[in-house]
Amino acid sequence: MAYERSNIRRMAGYTWGEQPEEPGACKLNTNENPYPPAPGVAAALAGIDVADLRVYPQPTAAPLRAKIAERHSLAKENAIVTHGGDEALRLAITTFVEPGSPLGCANPSYSLYPVLAAIQNAPVLAAEYGEDWTLPVDFAQRANAAGARLTCLVNPHAPSGRLMGADDCARLATELDGVLLLDEAYADFIDPALGYDSAPLLRAHDNLLILRSFSKGYSLAGLRLGYLIGHEGLIGPMLTKTRDSYNIDAISQRLGLAALDDQGHARDTWRRVRAQRSQLKDELARRGLACPPSQANFLLAQVPPNARLSARALHEALKAQGILVRHFDTPRLGDALRISIGTPAQNRRLLAAIDDLLGDVPAAR
Amino acid sequence: MAYERSNIRRMAGYTWGEQPEEPGACKLNTNENPYPPAPGVAAALAGIDVADLRVYPQPTAAPLRAKIAERHSLAKENAIVTHGGDEALRLAITTFVEPGSPLGCANPSYSLYPVLAAIQNAPVLAAEYGEDWTLPVDFAQRANAAGARLTCLVNPHAPSGRLMGADDCARLATELDGVLLLDEAYADFIDPALGYDSAPLLRAHDNLLILRSFSKGYSLAGLRLGYLIGHEGLIGPMLTKTRDSYNIDAISQRLGLAALDDQGHARDTWRRVRAQRSQLKDELARRGLACPPSQANFLLAQVPPNARLSARALHEALKAQGILVRHFDTPRLGDALRISIGTPAQNRRLLAAIDDLLGDVPAAR
Repeated sequence: MAYERSNIRRMAGYTWGEQPEEPGACKLNTNENPYPPAPGVAAALAGIDVADLRVYPQPTAAPLRAKIAERHSLAKENAIVTHGGDEALRLAITTFVEPGSPLGCANPSYSLYPVLAAIQNAPVLAAEYGEDWTLPVDFAQRANAAGARLTCLVNPHAPSGRLMGADDCARLATELDGVLLLDEAYADFIDPALGYDSAPLLRAHDNLLILRSFSKGYSLAGLRLGYLIGHEGLIGPMLTKTRDSYNIDAISQRLGLAALDDQGHARDTWRRVRAQRSQLKDELARRGLACPPSQANFLLAQVPPNARLSARALHEALKAQGILVRHFDTPRLGDALRISIGTPAQNRRLLAAIDDLLGDVPAAR
Repeated sequence: MAYERSNIRRMAGYTWGEQPEEPGACKLNTNENPYPPAPGVAAALAGIDVADLRVYPQPTAAPLRAKIAERHSLAKENAIVTHGGDEALRLAITTFVEPGSPLGCANPSYSLYPVLAAIQNAPVLAAEYGEDWTLPVDFAQRANAAGARLTCLVNPHAPSGRLMGADDCARLATELDGVLLLDEAYADFIDPALGYDSAPLLRAHDNLLILRSFSKGYSLAGLRLGYLIGHEGLIGPMLTKTRDSYNIDAISQRLGLAALDDQGHARDTWRRVRAQRSQLKDELARRGLACPPSQANFLLAQVPPNARLSARALHEALKAQGILVRHFDTPRLGDALRISIGTPAQNRRLLAAIDDLLGDVPAAR
């Protein structure tokens, strides 16, 4: 006999990217930072006394919230720390989306959004991104018409890497009747020359939530640490009601503080990833694999129709060589590969394998 | 403008026990183990390379699930690891309780149950425990009549400490139409001479879930680690659908394995807590504060009506001396204090303070 709710019975779970056990794999499939966490994080980890784990952690991660808030010129009432960005998304849906009422999204996007909506028994209103990975101009109007109380948009977009400017974010927040959650999981890799900063928008928009993650920018995917910032009216219900009590363990609180205190190291990894992103994009283009401009730590490489291998076959062939990239088997993405930016050595290994599998590189210019 | 769902707006959040910052406090209010985690856990913590945190953790905590399953003579498909027992409770409610349909409980109990039900917009069907902390004989019939698809019972009971025997658990599982979740957060402190073991019941009952926690038994409240065991038909939907992907961080997976590998240390702390429980119960009784028999790591001390201070006033007076115990301001519990079993020194300090505050101890028998 099945005891689970009927919507749970009907839904499919999230499919995560492969996490290989063997250490030799060239892992460019789940957008991890290719560089290790900061020395300050290592020192904080080494400094943890196991006896401190005996008691419950600080219930609201108050010191970490204070530091996060300070970083964005906000008060700690404007910040909630979450167990990875995934908890932030779940909390927003639990708190703002009534079962039966739609979650606003745009397709393709982070494949967890529809899974979390299905758990809440909420349909997904998914507009399609345009060819240039921009939103339809009437996106907010459609979300409003459908009664979406929460809309989740990843910015920079995944899997294209396209950055929507802060002006467009502000316009959407103004137009949407419900809450706009900007999922900035990859924002640390945006070129600082672009001057993108959405946090100042929070002053004018009480319906805006900004999600950040330590997984990529701070090389701490294994720790599960993220946060949301926003108006106290949005953060409060999640902080005091819908969040699991003690949602952030004592070690994560300490390491999160250390990561923010050692920004220099993290910024250096972001700079290196940006340099490699630019170089890898050029090298892929030279091989006929065009990528849209990306401000994230990955590229969406289009495998041309006349290539020796399809995207799916290339994905499998690379995997056979121990090189993991991500392939999404959908109409829009089926002829592309999402490739996380690796170290220079990893990127060279990938390019050499592509040369080998797809044939001669056109003569250098 | 309020954006949260109306049930979230109406509900109150969970009130956690005080977590004092000052290290000198005699903390007997949140049922932590008074002894530190095992040396094996300390060694595992010291052995973690911060570079391992760069990548996502094993998605389903498979090695830890395998060890947990082995411990209970089950398969790993029968186990899910959770971020503390709290996540286990939330997952069970998300998975099995339809909004609007009731969660089965008995009052008084863990005050988180009604909070989690309120988040799910589910009413609580709460039967009252009898004077001797037993369930009403028609408990299951009432839950069935109300249509409860999930019933949560803490065993040993909190805050009384009373243990319901495995036979009674089996009878309830048989009688209930829905899922029975036995919250065994305190089960490690049960006297082994009683031979209590509910895990074998899982073979005959496909509607039974058993919750365990590392918080108390393994002195790891700061880590947030717990688990559920049960029939694959119950565990599966939580493991593959409703759980946050990557719900257990890499450090917790390692430390959980180490804790189970160093059972000897943990068992020694359980033995010491049991000895202190027995002694403290006698000492409190000698002072006129009777406690029901407890198989947990706390005692529910009844403050007699003719005492110099009420339970509430005693709680405040102890707090003024840096001794924290728990007082619940409800009709059933208002004249009692829930006291976690501390170290011998902490328990002596508590008794001395009670002597001081409540007056002369009656002559020894």
